[in-house]
Amino acid sequence: MTTPAHLLRPVGRVESSLTDPATAPCQGDEGAPQAWLVFDEAYLPALAGLRPGAEVLVLTWLDRARRDVLTVHPRGDLTRAEAGVFATRSPHRPNPVGVHRVRLLEVTGARVRVDALEALDGTPVVDLKPVLDGER
Amino acid sequence: MTTPAHLLRPVGRVESSLTDPATAPCQGDEGAPQAWLVFDEAYLPALAGLRPGAEVLVLTWLDRARRDVLTVHPRGDLTRAEAGVFATRSPHRPNPVGVHRVRLLEVTGARVRVDALEALDGTPVVDLKPVLDGER
Repeated sequence: MTTPAHLLRPVGRVESSLTDPATAPCQGDEGAPQAWLVFDEAYLPALAGLRPGAEVLVLTWLDRARRDVLTVHPRGDLTRAEAGVFATRSPHRPNPVGVHRVRLLEVTGARVRVDALEALDGTPVVDLKPVLDGER
Repeated sequence: MTTPAHLLRPVGRVESSLTDPATAPCQGDEGAPQAWLVFDEAYLPALAGLRPGAEVLVLTWLDRARRDVLTVHPRGDLTRAEAGVFATRSPHRPNPVGVHRVRLLEVTGARVRVDALEALDGTPVVDLKPVLDGER
């Protein structure tokens, strides 16, 4: 199968106190801190209608992940059997797109503050979508 | 802000009876049909551990969407006020990555059958992730 690649263009960045991949939580509900999503000013119109309290999916590009890995020990635990990366939430995968479900706390211009986000400081943001009823 | 772009490489394709964007449902729970995810054989190891019954997020590249649109009338309804695309699930957005929550019905080699999926036939698949407890 020959398929063309597609260009993902960051629309912003994560601003977070998390800087060390080794100690960052694996998931938002595991003690991750609040964070800011800092959008490029060019995307300000795309934020219209977002309100504090809303639950959204933040899509990131996990730029420090490996892309050449197809199987992993879940959560890096070597005592657990290897699984295919599509059966895990490992950041290491062919296309390291992170999907993070968060709640909006504040929307100030092109800066959006969210509750628990496990992404590292500087991680590129590529999309933001409201959570659908069916996803609750 | 200057940010480098990232290359998204499709890992498979959607095989579906949906071929017409004009009549396709907007969401999976709006009458979307079953579909097959046909992965490139190279990614077979990444599927290890996926079992029928599991709920997963399918990430797609919505290759027929527009990327130059920042505001839309929700669901294309011209009587509704325009909203920023990040406040909607419109396929038209700077990075048209689709996030689809589906249930696995069958895993046969590199072919995976899923329940209701609103993606069009031929849509590139870029990732598959298990749904986390916190996302239920």
